[in-house]
Amino acid sequence: MWAQREVTLQARPRGFHLVTREIVEALPELRDVSAGLLHLHLLHTSASLTLNENASPDVRRDFETWANAAVPEDFAWTHTLEGPDDMPAHIKASLMGPSLTLPVARGRLALGTWQGIYLCEHRNRGGARSLIATINGE
Amino acid sequence: MWAQREVTLQARPRGFHLVTREIVEALPELRDVSAGLLHLHLLHTSASLTLNENASPDVRRDFETWANAAVPEDFAWTHTLEGPDDMPAHIKASLMGPSLTLPVARGRLALGTWQGIYLCEHRNRGGARSLIATINGE
Amino acid sequence: MWAQREVTLQARPRGFHLVTREIVEALPELRDVSAGLLHLHLLHTSASLTLNENASPDVRRDFETWANAAVPEDFAWTHTLEGPDDMPAHIKASLMGPSLTLPVARGRLALGTWQGIYLCEHRNRGGARSLIATINGE
Repeated sequence: MWAQREVTLQARPRGFHLVTREIVEALPELRDVSAGLLHLHLLHTSASLTLNENASPDVRRDFETWANAAVPEDFAWTHTLEGPDDMPAHIKASLMGPSLTLPVARGRLALGTWQGIYLCEHRNRGGARSLIATINGE
Repeated sequence: MWAQREVTLQARPRGFHLVTREIVEALPELRDVSAGLLHLHLLHTSASLTLNENASPDVRRDFETWANAAVPEDFAWTHTLEGPDDMPAHIKASLMGPSLTLPVARGRLALGTWQGIYLCEHRNRGGARSLIATINGE
Repeated sequence: MWAQREVTLQARPRGFHLVTREIVEALPELRDVSAGLLHLHLLHTSASLTLNENASPDVRRDFETWANAAVPEDFAWTHTLEGPDDMPAHIKASLMGPSLTLPVARGRLALGTWQGIYLCEHRNRGGARSLIATINGE
């Protein structure tokens, strides 16, 4: 079976945010899949998706600190018209990636115990972010 | 339905290049998919694929500048036989990744307004790059 | 057809390791796929999967050297309870990514000549790592 729908995540401040529950609750079709895959595709170029530790807020804070050091606002950027946070946001978005493909088994996401889905908001004011969820399985 | 074919992209100089149109034109099967996924897999270890801003050439130039700073040629590399651009190219290829999975809806790639496919050519003379495109959908 | 199974990889020391053979040998179902995809999903947040050069051990050693420089243990981390290698491991895991989707053609992985699957072990003592392999094809 195939299911495809757009999901809009609530606006969040710059940083790394745990959104597993918000995404799973928007996708009741997952319950109908005994074995398959969920593909999540963010429709933006200045935010991204990744999978990481779902317990400690410290981990998400450290992600933001590291990302700002690795892709600084103060750099030899030429694309600066949209503000100092814009070009670093594009780079960070490609580093983490715009999409995730996740296994589905027995009606649920088959993630590791400590794995959660992060929305990585790289702009100061990114607003609500939308993604296309595609479910495929049997 | 499944469709799978090899696509060879024209040779490009080192840098980040917008190739959305070149790829879509090579895949007429996309028109037959009402809901599904396109998987693009580059067959190389010194070039990569990513998705980012499709409008300003400045963005693509800044990607190259940042990548050269983050993965410098002047570093403690031990694998240097194939030239100073080789080992940084391998690292950059894994940072951006060898493949993309993209949603397809109503016969077209379902990308965000500003999203385009980048071929990231990390070698000085990488030559033509080939990928395997796999389309799956209904 | 769909096939899904958990595969446990043997424990490896910190570093980048070629595991193509270990994974393919655990997945006899690949032989039944004429055209399709293999999705590999690591169930951990401090190890990752990537695809890169399958010949020279120097390349894998240089990956480790670069990763340690790009994500140093000596940094402004706040999440330090689990040891100095823990928080860098989380960041490296997201940089490389938890999963790979690979084309399958005529019963085999359709990789480039020089492409091999790397298990990236980012912890000093990560232990055996498990992944969910999902095969889909015709």
